[in-house]
Amino acid sequence: MAFTLEDLAGRVGGRVEGDGSVLIERVRPLEDAGPGDVTFFANRKYRAELEATRASAVIVAEEEAVPGGRALLRARDPYLAFAKISTLFHPPRESVPEIAPGAVVHESARVHPSAQVMPLAYVGPGARVGARTILYPGVVLDEEARVGDDCVLYPTVVVRVRGTVGYRGILPRGVVGGGDGFGFAFDMEGEGGSGPRHYKVPQAGIAVVEDDVEIGANSCVDRATLGQTVVRRGAKVDNLVQVGHNVEVGPLSLLAAGTGIGGSTRLGMGVICGGQVGLVGHLQIGDGVRFGAQSGVTNDVAAGETYSGYPAVPHAQWRREVVALHKLPELLKQVKELEKQVKRLEEGK
Amino acid sequence: MAFTLEDLAGRVGGRVEGDGSVLIERVRPLEDAGPGDVTFFANRKYRAELEATRASAVIVAEEEAVPGGRALLRARDPYLAFAKISTLFHPPRESVPEIAPGAVVHESARVHPSAQVMPLAYVGPGARVGARTILYPGVVLDEEARVGDDCVLYPTVVVRVRGTVGYRGILPRGVVGGGDGFGFAFDMEGEGGSGPRHYKVPQAGIAVVEDDVEIGANSCVDRATLGQTVVRRGAKVDNLVQVGHNVEVGPLSLLAAGTGIGGSTRLGMGVICGGQVGLVGHLQIGDGVRFGAQSGVTNDVAAGETYSGYPAVPHAQWRREVVALHKLPELLKQVKELEKQVKRLEEGK
Amino acid sequence: MAFTLEDLAGRVGGRVEGDGSVLIERVRPLEDAGPGDVTFFANRKYRAELEATRASAVIVAEEEAVPGGRALLRARDPYLAFAKISTLFHPPRESVPEIAPGAVVHESARVHPSAQVMPLAYVGPGARVGARTILYPGVVLDEEARVGDDCVLYPTVVVRVRGTVGYRGILPRGVVGGGDGFGFAFDMEGEGGSGPRHYKVPQAGIAVVEDDVEIGANSCVDRATLGQTVVRRGAKVDNLVQVGHNVEVGPLSLLAAGTGIGGSTRLGMGVICGGQVGLVGHLQIGDGVRFGAQSGVTNDVAAGETYSGYPAVPHAQWRREVVALHKLPELLKQVKELEKQVKRLEEGK
Repeated sequence: MAFTLEDLAGRVGGRVEGDGSVLIERVRPLEDAGPGDVTFFANRKYRAELEATRASAVIVAEEEAVPGGRALLRARDPYLAFAKISTLFHPPRESVPEIAPGAVVHESARVHPSAQVMPLAYVGPGARVGARTILYPGVVLDEEARVGDDCVLYPTVVVRVRGTVGYRGILPRGVVGGGDGFGFAFDMEGEGGSGPRHYKVPQAGIAVVEDDVEIGANSCVDRATLGQTVVRRGAKVDNLVQVGHNVEVGPLSLLAAGTGIGGSTRLGMGVICGGQVGLVGHLQIGDGVRFGAQSGVTNDVAAGETYSGYPAVPHAQWRREVVALHKLPELLKQVKELEKQVKRLEEGK
Repeated sequence: MAFTLEDLAGRVGGRVEGDGSVLIERVRPLEDAGPGDVTFFANRKYRAELEATRASAVIVAEEEAVPGGRALLRARDPYLAFAKISTLFHPPRESVPEIAPGAVVHESARVHPSAQVMPLAYVGPGARVGARTILYPGVVLDEEARVGDDCVLYPTVVVRVRGTVGYRGILPRGVVGGGDGFGFAFDMEGEGGSGPRHYKVPQAGIAVVEDDVEIGANSCVDRATLGQTVVRRGAKVDNLVQVGHNVEVGPLSLLAAGTGIGGSTRLGMGVICGGQVGLVGHLQIGDGVRFGAQSGVTNDVAAGETYSGYPAVPHAQWRREVVALHKLPELLKQVKELEKQVKRLEEGK
Repeated sequence: MAFTLEDLAGRVGGRVEGDGSVLIERVRPLEDAGPGDVTFFANRKYRAELEATRASAVIVAEEEAVPGGRALLRARDPYLAFAKISTLFHPPRESVPEIAPGAVVHESARVHPSAQVMPLAYVGPGARVGARTILYPGVVLDEEARVGDDCVLYPTVVVRVRGTVGYRGILPRGVVGGGDGFGFAFDMEGEGGSGPRHYKVPQAGIAVVEDDVEIGANSCVDRATLGQTVVRRGAKVDNLVQVGHNVEVGPLSLLAAGTGIGGSTRLGMGVICGGQVGLVGHLQIGDGVRFGAQSGVTNDVAAGETYSGYPAVPHAQWRREVVALHKLPELLKQVKELEKQVKRLEEGK
């Protein structure tokens, strides 16, 4: 597969600077790229790598100053342009329609004839698999689970009873499309007066993953206690993320790895959580809110805010407090000194 | 399935206020409930939803003031009453005794005739499965693993060699009933003098999950180095929790999602960890201790205490420190100002 | 299996103090050990257990003072000596060469005749399995995945397309040898002007796990965007760890449970992360760096440093700041008092 740089520029709405006829055969990182490769520069930390790259062409921002002698593809958003060009070279795997020997599909399940069910995948009673969807080995669709068209469920993804995955979902691995929510009522007396226990609250609701969602490896989307836990269209969830029961993750939200969201909390549209963020339950988080990595969120946050810290406060405040904390050991000495001076002044009065 | 409100009240030891003959057919959340539904009110954050609900009946606390015109089921603990009523409407799935085609059961394994082994589940040599227990597709019971009566092991749960799960255990998914503990001895010389390496300490012990335990999705209970790692009766472990080698989790403890417990640490009875709590190894944590979410615990904690913070301190102290920290940037200015004033005073002396 | 203490001492380069002819049949912890058992003492927290142990022999450090009347095996590093002796009593499981009925091996895969593929394991097209390697039930090797000699892949480990695992790798469970990296480019216009979306950046690279690596349960090593994500030789990764796309984990590094490493960050040799550490992306971490548990790392760190805190700072500084923070509530009062005194002094001037 090969494209001229001119052709690539046209496909992503960019423009060429230098030789547009150069043939591009691969997409590679700055430091590995050589002749025939296009690479990209989107993070100024890698300036030295940019200057040293042997790539035939580099995707850069329109205003970026670049040393001469290189063919450039200038784009408004070079990372997006790179992503689109990389997709040309790495098209998603297509379904090879079959139900493989060694797969187990219940007789009451409905699998679209264009779907691919690989060996050792399981499609349970009443489950449905949409057109062109691929189920890898070890995938388990529980009773009445539904997976839409054009999805990819990588090995050992589990979608629990009545859980649903929308169109074009990508579930890399080990995902729980609906594990039991963590809900218990403390029962002092216990079964027939046998003593205290945590009484399990039935988790009778479902988990819904809407269209164009990606959910990372070993992430968990719990079933609702009643009603739905829902990850809305276009949201992207990284690895090892916990989405508690009855949570709503707003459309286009991004949850980085290790984030945990307590039960019944609702995130608006386009909320961004850095890595290892924790939110307690029953919060309302407005549209476009951003949380710094490792924030611990214990209160509602209004739309558009950026919060950080443990417990989380507005980001600018947190920065001020961190800077001030670094001065605190010195401050303790200063105050001790001041006390001495004031004592002397009082005594000398 | 339908019950009169009077009947439901009798079953949970509550009392009816209003029309006890109303027929209840479903349990639904405040905001979704309509005629024929019972709902519950246990968190004052949802006061507006309570006032707007169209449910036929609401489960509320005995002393709760509720706008008139609604049938009420008053209970000492409305959340527990709700949990019990919801269980009536959503009884746990029962075993359908069989070893399904496509399951693999070793000839030396013993599966109780009332148990259900679903397709693509694996029961290894010498493993045992108790009465009425259900193994979903993708479950793997390693050699000599034992699972008691009335358990449910959801898809892809793994119980490693000689690991045991007691009666009525619920393992929602991807659990490790005994992964290798993380134990290495640094070996400067290495194999035949070949250089430094981390020498693997054999993890030859087992993991034991006692009766009435629930362990969440993608949680890990490591095998012991020697002896046992044990999660005691009635403890509930949420998703993505790490229970290190030789840890003991006391009975009725609750570990919320993302919590990690270092090797050989022991938790007493009824310990509660909020989300993403971390405990280092070799600690003793007393009965009834509570840790706030994201606490980092580095010391033993006596029974009954509540700790928070990083590193964790008594909760009230942590609150004071957090409040004080918010004043620190201002304090720095105040002290600077004081220094000026004192300087002027000293000069004017 | 039984060894004299003298024999054991010789095998680990230690020396006997007391009766070297005592027969040792088991390795057990201090508190459980009895006659015929050897135990070890490597953590002074367990002094009382040492004094009470009924073990036939104890492995201790050369300089350790121990109450008399016990046979001792003195070693320079007692934990390493214990580890080696425990390995004698608990040798790793050996491969029982076969491709079990119920396993699925693609006709284009190459499985070494000495390897063991257990039931319900899957070896995909073009995948390779090395000599004496064991694949447990539920393991999935995707297309072109390669696993070296003497590896053990415990149940439900997944190695994604073209991912590689070196020699002597141990993957306890649920590992992703290459899940998709979390990479999206924000696309304001969307497909045909349909509105904003997160455009998926193809994750076309691979994940490489070198020789002698252990990767814990439910840990994720993401595929690279382009090029490789790599965990170098001898590194040990605990459970629930996230290794982002294009990360490099240096040789002999140790990552404790719950740690997350953002995309493109590079760790040098022998880096140690305590539990639940988070590192943002694009960092350079030098050789031998240590991070305290729950650190949040946002900047490059030079070789040999120890950092802690959120955000992470040099460990000694963090300790000072924590100590100072505990004094802050009192400091606020002191400054208020000082202000009053200074005001009085000024008024009395």
